[in-house]
Amino acid sequence: MQLRTRKVFGSGSFYFRNQEVRTDNLFLNQHIILSANPLTTMSFPETHYSRRAFLQRASLGVGATFAAAPLLAAAESSSLPVQDGKKLGIALVGLGYYSTDLLAPALQQTQHCKLAGIVTGTPEKAQKWKEKYNIPDKNIYNYQTFDRIADNADIDIVYVVLPPSMHAEYTIRAAKAGKHVICEKPMAMSAKECQQMIEACDKAGKKLSIGYRMHFEPTTQEVMRIAKEKPIGKIQMVAAGAGYKENRATHWKLKKAMGGGAMMDMGVYSLQGARYATGEEPIAVSAQMFTTRPDMFKEVDETVTFQLLFPSGAVANLHTSFGMGMNYLQVNAEKGWYRLDPFSAYSGIKGESSNGPLQFPKVNQQATQVDEVAQSLMQNQPLRVTGAEGLKDIRVVEAIYQSIKAGGKRIDLKA
Amino acid sequence: MQLRTRKVFGSGSFYFRNQEVRTDNLFLNQHIILSANPLTTMSFPETHYSRRAFLQRASLGVGATFAAAPLLAAAESSSLPVQDGKKLGIALVGLGYYSTDLLAPALQQTQHCKLAGIVTGTPEKAQKWKEKYNIPDKNIYNYQTFDRIADNADIDIVYVVLPPSMHAEYTIRAAKAGKHVICEKPMAMSAKECQQMIEACDKAGKKLSIGYRMHFEPTTQEVMRIAKEKPIGKIQMVAAGAGYKENRATHWKLKKAMGGGAMMDMGVYSLQGARYATGEEPIAVSAQMFTTRPDMFKEVDETVTFQLLFPSGAVANLHTSFGMGMNYLQVNAEKGWYRLDPFSAYSGIKGESSNGPLQFPKVNQQATQVDEVAQSLMQNQPLRVTGAEGLKDIRVVEAIYQSIKAGGKRIDLKA
Repeated sequence: MQLRTRKVFGSGSFYFRNQEVRTDNLFLNQHIILSANPLTTMSFPETHYSRRAFLQRASLGVGATFAAAPLLAAAESSSLPVQDGKKLGIALVGLGYYSTDLLAPALQQTQHCKLAGIVTGTPEKAQKWKEKYNIPDKNIYNYQTFDRIADNADIDIVYVVLPPSMHAEYTIRAAKAGKHVICEKPMAMSAKECQQMIEACDKAGKKLSIGYRMHFEPTTQEVMRIAKEKPIGKIQMVAAGAGYKENRATHWKLKKAMGGGAMMDMGVYSLQGARYATGEEPIAVSAQMFTTRPDMFKEVDETVTFQLLFPSGAVANLHTSFGMGMNYLQVNAEKGWYRLDPFSAYSGIKGESSNGPLQFPKVNQQATQVDEVAQSLMQNQPLRVTGAEGLKDIRVVEAIYQSIKAGGKRIDLKA
Repeated sequence: MQLRTRKVFGSGSFYFRNQEVRTDNLFLNQHIILSANPLTTMSFPETHYSRRAFLQRASLGVGATFAAAPLLAAAESSSLPVQDGKKLGIALVGLGYYSTDLLAPALQQTQHCKLAGIVTGTPEKAQKWKEKYNIPDKNIYNYQTFDRIADNADIDIVYVVLPPSMHAEYTIRAAKAGKHVICEKPMAMSAKECQQMIEACDKAGKKLSIGYRMHFEPTTQEVMRIAKEKPIGKIQMVAAGAGYKENRATHWKLKKAMGGGAMMDMGVYSLQGARYATGEEPIAVSAQMFTTRPDMFKEVDETVTFQLLFPSGAVANLHTSFGMGMNYLQVNAEKGWYRLDPFSAYSGIKGESSNGPLQFPKVNQQATQVDEVAQSLMQNQPLRVTGAEGLKDIRVVEAIYQSIKAGGKRIDLKA
């Protein structure tokens, strides 16, 4: 496997020059190498990219002008043997919108894992999924029978897709049942719960990942590289907004006890954006809450603005809302800027920068995510996103709510 | 004069269809009427636009897709007689960068006013300007002789281009000398000073305008129209950043007593942006201060983030900095969005929106500004920008510093 990377913040369009695709089973070894101008070399894994779309993009001269070396570390560790054709079995816990419209379809596209079971409290859903995805009765659980999953060899990973108030309980029960766990974001209701989840998985000798699909998305990985390698100098300011108009007054997202609120749901994207765009952990936070529909937003926040200070001096001025649609990440650095819009949507992540367009091939985020998690588990390699990552966000979210309660007071965070 | 306007938020490029240019002396009667698709009709004054550039833009299909009716109210009042060929004489007080590089050149392009005098404490500057702009000795003052300007019939308007700490004094002295006044932004050191300036001009029967050049810029006027006519529904959120890297440690902008600080200097643009993009006055404000160069920023703020709440429920999440370059205004509304980048630069204001490009012909902002002020004065018509507008910003700036001092506490503003 050849990975040529040069840390160059180049400009101009890139052109396809060379293609190297292995046919073995390790998707991290399957990649395409592109060159832009004489200076820019890009490489990234190719699975879940539409190769045809990628080549069309390249030949049109449309696309990334940032050099990219995402997944390099992971790629270097991909030489361990893997059982040929083995797919880990995933059970989805909670069959709401995200499981139904995103995860289940994504699991039809994965190479290293598959939809093997479901956990639902609604028999009609069980029947529907059973037929649609050919799930055997023995792999269908409800919340009472869930713990018997311990005896089911078809299930390797439990993916918790429940409201946040249930994340800790089902993650811990899954770990006790001897399963690896992927838990959706936000990780839990409190930092304390996050720690309990991490401890339960550690104790059970099982791995815990959080459903931060953006970490598996190529443009987002380039953002992380820019933070780390600083091709445009020190990051100085991040501005981001993530929101949508929530009109379902009875939805759990409107219930505090279930983990609702704009900050918990969409604000975590702005927060994640600031953290991965700086590559730093905030040392202080302040926040403000606003509501235009007080009758509907009695328990939870409709709109939150929040500010983060990072050790380098970088500042993030962020917001989130259940009152309006928005999704952008703007980053100013010493020697340039970039802006993604959208930055955390399920697809279509694209951007521009002081050096030209910032756009990488589209991936199926969920498929790429679970496939890499499955592969890391099979190879017993470190996960890209661990419980520690989810805990970091929840600590900041707690401080945000604390600041709101204290009238916008700055809350210092311990390192 | 024919002003055809239709309040349409159309999409697509516009095409030149009809041109109507009067040759009389009232620039508000000189305009071009354009039509886009069958639905969109635009009209705007034409003076200071490069007509050739405008027509090229139109024929290229590049430009505004928002219908525009800027200056309509003013245009309707433009039928008063004006002394043919009369130009009001302007004296610039303070010959720093802005006077030298922006105002003086702009005053070579104006139809209704001209550079008639200067006030400077530096004899070398006086000599240089005298030669360059053919200014008679009798129209050259220093800060000791300034008040004698009362006897100078060549000077109709005094334009105060001094550091903010001197704005009140020179505005009041100019009013007492019987001159109209244009005062640069930020208007003064405090709301109290602003009120004194307004009162002094009222008492002298003279007019006071503040140097908010953006109010005379066509894309900005379209932003104001969008706020007022709501073609994309209620404005929900404004995000804006304005800043540049200030490296001059001994400049007055680093001195608190002279009116320095990022918030006073660049933050006023973010604040203005939020005010004119919503068309509302904030009812509450909170703010946070950050510094990366504490040795340099001992007295004044390097970076400020601030939040405004408006009566409609709209929220603005804003920032400003002397630590980095940035200049953008992003607006989310119920039925769409737009974004200008840059939004308050001396030129090149341009944007995009949910309905397509948002871009109007370039103007010389300073020339357009002073020419309209001069014409309004000659016609005894209301000014587009009065002292009251400057006062509104300074009230908010005071609350911002108050909030910073109070650790980010929300400060309620009286209506």
